[in-house]
Amino acid sequence: MASDLPSLAERIQPLDAAAMGAARERENRLTKPAGSLGRLEELAIQLAGITGRPRPRFAHKAVIVLAGDHGVASAGVSAYPREVTAQMVLNFLAGGAAINVLARRVGARVVVGDLGVDADLPEHPGLIDARIARGTRNMVDGPAMTRAEALAAISAGAEILDDEAEQGLDLLAIGEMGIGNTTAASAIVAALTGLPVARVTGRGTGVDDRGWQRKVAAIESALAVNRPHHDDPLDVLAKVGGFEIAGLVGVTLAAAGRRIPVLVDGFISSVAALVAAEICPAARGYLIAAHRSVEVGHQAVLDRLGLKPYLDLDLRLGEGTGAALAMGLVDAAAAILDEMATFGEAGVSDRTSPDDPAPGAPGSPADG
Amino acid sequence: MASDLPSLAERIQPLDAAAMGAARERENRLTKPAGSLGRLEELAIQLAGITGRPRPRFAHKAVIVLAGDHGVASAGVSAYPREVTAQMVLNFLAGGAAINVLARRVGARVVVGDLGVDADLPEHPGLIDARIARGTRNMVDGPAMTRAEALAAISAGAEILDDEAEQGLDLLAIGEMGIGNTTAASAIVAALTGLPVARVTGRGTGVDDRGWQRKVAAIESALAVNRPHHDDPLDVLAKVGGFEIAGLVGVTLAAAGRRIPVLVDGFISSVAALVAAEICPAARGYLIAAHRSVEVGHQAVLDRLGLKPYLDLDLRLGEGTGAALAMGLVDAAAAILDEMATFGEAGVSDRTSPDDPAPGAPGSPADG
Repeated sequence: MASDLPSLAERIQPLDAAAMGAARERENRLTKPAGSLGRLEELAIQLAGITGRPRPRFAHKAVIVLAGDHGVASAGVSAYPREVTAQMVLNFLAGGAAINVLARRVGARVVVGDLGVDADLPEHPGLIDARIARGTRNMVDGPAMTRAEALAAISAGAEILDDEAEQGLDLLAIGEMGIGNTTAASAIVAALTGLPVARVTGRGTGVDDRGWQRKVAAIESALAVNRPHHDDPLDVLAKVGGFEIAGLVGVTLAAAGRRIPVLVDGFISSVAALVAAEICPAARGYLIAAHRSVEVGHQAVLDRLGLKPYLDLDLRLGEGTGAALAMGLVDAAAAILDEMATFGEAGVSDRTSPDDPAPGAPGSPADG
Repeated sequence: MASDLPSLAERIQPLDAAAMGAARERENRLTKPAGSLGRLEELAIQLAGITGRPRPRFAHKAVIVLAGDHGVASAGVSAYPREVTAQMVLNFLAGGAAINVLARRVGARVVVGDLGVDADLPEHPGLIDARIARGTRNMVDGPAMTRAEALAAISAGAEILDDEAEQGLDLLAIGEMGIGNTTAASAIVAALTGLPVARVTGRGTGVDDRGWQRKVAAIESALAVNRPHHDDPLDVLAKVGGFEIAGLVGVTLAAAGRRIPVLVDGFISSVAALVAAEICPAARGYLIAAHRSVEVGHQAVLDRLGLKPYLDLDLRLGEGTGAALAMGLVDAAAAILDEMATFGEAGVSDRTSPDDPAPGAPGSPADG
């Protein structure tokens, strides 16, 4: 499929209201007090709307993890050296990273894409070479990427999603790896929202106080030097973003265009999802916020997207780890909707309370 | 094993500090910034302490769901008729309830025990007959159970756990079913904590305003009539509790005595866990709070137990559903600890930041 930005945006349709209505109606006939499974019920209804199926199930899961290096890493903004990006890519390929462990548990394959790592990575059947350049330029000195590079990374991400979809994909988690990429993500949030840099900048992998001050200063310089336009998300992405973030924008848009639910991981993945939603607001309905990250800027991103995360476990690793964990909740929500008995099937009496809700509401006598 | 209360309490040992230390040390050598998996790391360390194994895994899981009827149900405190307790037991046995669906997803068997259902239940290989009586007496008129009945229910629960342990059990979730049992649970909380009844009484399966007022009034009457002693948890349990709640006290104590982690479900299960911990404070370390229920009294119980739940999904179903969901997180935490590569194994550089933490802390150069 065409992977240019206008084509990607054009394919994204609203959620399927009929499937959502059918799912909601069934939820209310299952043998439980209506609404008693709380957010799992809402989630199941959203999944119906995304997929267009009243009882969706997910047999083909993938975590797409994109990696890239960042010129700004040379400004001392991270607790880890730049070569860790490539080392962790090798760890993903060897199956030893947290994302491998968590993806295995939910039966998801891990797809690793090199969008811009600054290293000679070996050929490996599990590694997709979609490299645009060997890392971005340092945003403190000028644009991290050209607009053309950012567009190329978006298209490359979309093509990765398309290839995976052809192999079978009905539930997606997105994740990333890139030393320095919380700096890029915070810069994007500050540029898009106008919030003060210090308010949306955290400690990433664990930088100390002086490192944090360097990070804030680097972002402030980058914004002053590049002057990204807050109402042009592509301009923001190119000037202060990164290749893996742009790639995830493409992955997200392409998945939404194919009605595949997108489980968004922590801060950086959420920033990619935000850029996707700013480019094409209809993409928002396809997003599921997996967890609330410790990273301080995450809440601002979730607020802007209007999403409430499902897990709150003080995670701050990235790689898609929180999204892979939440795949278990997605499967559970779908299984509840699909497998539970109804009041009628099970011969269970429904509620008696006469002075309670409206006709047609959950628990009408017709159920029993 | 002896299932009288003193024997149950005597078998519960402190958590294994050596196993916890070994787990903590390994967590810090895995290829992730130290602490970046947040509460999953704490959970893995607790699991090591409970089991006494530095890298615990869980192959034999069960959800023990105990059922009982409540005399107080005749006071109009529930949105559902009393016969639903037995109907839902049959639904559990047929595999159509929410707990069956969620237990299947995590590979846990569902064990159903009748501790005091007021119905002629059929013989069924999946149903354990441990009935003490056909429901409790109405606590508004006098004690719901005699002290001897409460002790018998505790012992019956402990024996169910022992039988399951002999069939293989290394991870337990507890759940319950009993129309009227949020009324009993709220009465126990009010009696043990001294908090006002209205503050610890919620809407259960969905009672309306008038039903809620009846519920509060019934609990206040029961406390006035029975005068349970707040410092005698067994007295409180007998006078205003229920058979399934007492049974879960026994299950919990017996599991702790065998070093089996106990995933506690919502409000009612947490009240059973609280009574167990009030009887034997050493049991507390074996408890894992699965989720935060919508039921208003739950937070007071969690506070008293000093537990922080892992999920917050607006659940209010019971049956062990939240605990079964959290089994996925327990498995994930254990898998992370057991399966991830260390910095040394993966050849990944550790953090560079020189002005950072203490010697021996996560990320010391020896890792790389």
